[in-house]
Amino acid sequence: MVFKISPLTPQNIQELSPLSGVRIATAKAGIKYKDRTDLLFMVFDKPVSVAGVFTRSKCPSAPVEHCRASLPHGVARGVVVNSGNANAFTGRKGKNTTNEIVFAAANTLKVRENEIFIASTGVIGEPMDASGIVSLLPSMAETAEKGNWLEAAKAIMTTDTFPKLATRTFDCGGENVTIHGIAKGAGMIAPDMATMLSFVISDATISSDMLQSMLSEAVQGSFNSITVDSDTSTSDTLMLFATGKEHFPCITSQSDSRYSVFVKQLGALLHELALQVVCDGEGARHLIEVNVTGATTDNAAKTIALSIANSPLVKTAIAGEDANWGRVVMAVGKAGVEVDRDLLTIWFGEHCVAVNGERDPTYCEETIGAYMQGKHITIRVDIGLGAGEATVWSCDLTKEYVMINSDYRN
Amino acid sequence: MVFKISPLTPQNIQELSPLSGVRIATAKAGIKYKDRTDLLFMVFDKPVSVAGVFTRSKCPSAPVEHCRASLPHGVARGVVVNSGNANAFTGRKGKNTTNEIVFAAANTLKVRENEIFIASTGVIGEPMDASGIVSLLPSMAETAEKGNWLEAAKAIMTTDTFPKLATRTFDCGGENVTIHGIAKGAGMIAPDMATMLSFVISDATISSDMLQSMLSEAVQGSFNSITVDSDTSTSDTLMLFATGKEHFPCITSQSDSRYSVFVKQLGALLHELALQVVCDGEGARHLIEVNVTGATTDNAAKTIALSIANSPLVKTAIAGEDANWGRVVMAVGKAGVEVDRDLLTIWFGEHCVAVNGERDPTYCEETIGAYMQGKHITIRVDIGLGAGEATVWSCDLTKEYVMINSDYRN
Repeated sequence: MVFKISPLTPQNIQELSPLSGVRIATAKAGIKYKDRTDLLFMVFDKPVSVAGVFTRSKCPSAPVEHCRASLPHGVARGVVVNSGNANAFTGRKGKNTTNEIVFAAANTLKVRENEIFIASTGVIGEPMDASGIVSLLPSMAETAEKGNWLEAAKAIMTTDTFPKLATRTFDCGGENVTIHGIAKGAGMIAPDMATMLSFVISDATISSDMLQSMLSEAVQGSFNSITVDSDTSTSDTLMLFATGKEHFPCITSQSDSRYSVFVKQLGALLHELALQVVCDGEGARHLIEVNVTGATTDNAAKTIALSIANSPLVKTAIAGEDANWGRVVMAVGKAGVEVDRDLLTIWFGEHCVAVNGERDPTYCEETIGAYMQGKHITIRVDIGLGAGEATVWSCDLTKEYVMINSDYRN
Repeated sequence: MVFKISPLTPQNIQELSPLSGVRIATAKAGIKYKDRTDLLFMVFDKPVSVAGVFTRSKCPSAPVEHCRASLPHGVARGVVVNSGNANAFTGRKGKNTTNEIVFAAANTLKVRENEIFIASTGVIGEPMDASGIVSLLPSMAETAEKGNWLEAAKAIMTTDTFPKLATRTFDCGGENVTIHGIAKGAGMIAPDMATMLSFVISDATISSDMLQSMLSEAVQGSFNSITVDSDTSTSDTLMLFATGKEHFPCITSQSDSRYSVFVKQLGALLHELALQVVCDGEGARHLIEVNVTGATTDNAAKTIALSIANSPLVKTAIAGEDANWGRVVMAVGKAGVEVDRDLLTIWFGEHCVAVNGERDPTYCEETIGAYMQGKHITIRVDIGLGAGEATVWSCDLTKEYVMINSDYRN
């Protein structure tokens, strides 16, 4: 199946600069796809700090289990990622496959197995053979280069229609620091560790425990605030590495003034990646931003925002460029948290469509209709009860989503 | 827009027999649709017992509010139902519209306003004018006839592709008793009072409080166990009336042996209507039955079953006749209740597809592929932890669902 490139694709998709401490190689392992790369090997020549957040699925994949178990060691030397097969729900075989790949990578780099991180994305439940991957790792380790970020982002794609990269360079306590990130998404995207895979690497020097705390903080407004189809993957993995640079004393405490500088930039980068994931949601034609204010608490606001962002009827209306705000009311009503129908105010973009429990008297179908033809639709709901607020991002539900997912395995 | 008739339409859609105590009229009020009926007036010439369950939406429609407020009076004399406009989120105007219709119906029948029940279904948020309905009620009351059930079921349809009726006649304590029911569904269907509208009438003699208790019991395994798109309507209304017949002493207690006889038949009838609603879910091409056993509790089983039945990725796979049981694992994992991946067993129909955390060794794509081409797909999951179980019904997610809902208002 060939997918149309998302109309929400960023205008510039550019190679990122080389980053000290990390070398990258990609290859064609032929796991599922033909004539494209499907294997990524990221090599850290010296030990680097590492942090990660993973799916909250009760049925996680074997690779997720390996990463979770290895994280407390706090050191990374290599990352192996394949697309085409998620190696999830593959039982003992799947665990063996993961172990074989990890063992081969550790052996190649002459490091410990819990210093190798691994992620797999693609079909669930199909046994995956390790041999095609294992045999490629030694030559990949040799040819891996600084740079190659665009190739890395391409190798981990599944039904993504564009590679996802983001970068930030900023002053952090008098030193220039860079963060690069890649991600893949497309389907099975929901909050509570949202995207399927994302790898973020900085050249800053940061202890692993601080890195973990930064990541947990930065993920809330980014990957944990997006949803494509409310379906939570078995394989969601977001990892952050810090390779460390000279003249940059290690950040080991939250009271270090550079901590918040870094978190802010990290948050912005993750947000950019997360929005790229939504913009490339399967079949997506519109990016939807849902902003809820005036709820009793921030949590209540997020529950309402997700109820709107996940509603099939809201998402199909946006696909049809139909300002069907009645369905927004429905989604507010079904969220189950405290609301008062007659205090709701609803805007599409800048246009107030409903107020005081009914259609806004100034409502103009033509004006709203023109707004709905834009690619980025903002739905704002004020609940009128308190100060709780939240914003989440989603995409529309189109015929293409159904077509892509009706026959994914073939 | 013209919708293809659901391939899951029942083979026989038949007129029901006249039922003593109730007369029915339908008319074309031109609320939204042209050239079809959109108004139903059900007249009880003597006071009858009444029970109801309604949407749990926090933003219910004005008609739902009127019914809720009137129910404690425990007497019904008439029911007015219109399709084409839900009169929901229409503010003070909507309340006035409801009041005008109720007042006119009460005046026509010379009864109290809280003896008139009302339901509206269709677009949300559009103001609805009462005058077209009000002017028709007197002539409808005059011409209303015993029978006319098929016409009643047709008048309340929105995007339904077939009228929904069910009936039971059975011996209840030595007397023959009949229950007739009609329903409409199609979209915005989720548990917690599932269908949009359903009206069920029996000629048995039952007190209103017993009727309410019977209805609350019978709704659990029927309308509260179905889902089309996880979206809960602002207008869901299920009402049960008992007109009372001679030689049938009133059921006034749960210890009356006829109570359980009636509840059992009522449950079967509601189940039949609920399945018709699922079979006519917007764009539905397959009926999906999800049966979860071995969960820690019945509630846990229902949470898992609904997670599967509402998953867009499971529903699109069924649409594509793809036995993508990996997505079933995903949906089990995201449900958030206690499961152990390696204890799961999954069947499609009679065919075991996964066991002990991986694909069943006897898995045969051809056999499963043939099964998936059937219209009624059963997904069974055994969690392997306890004795909790639940069954829910859903339908697949097709391109047609998206097409129907992308442009509903136009």
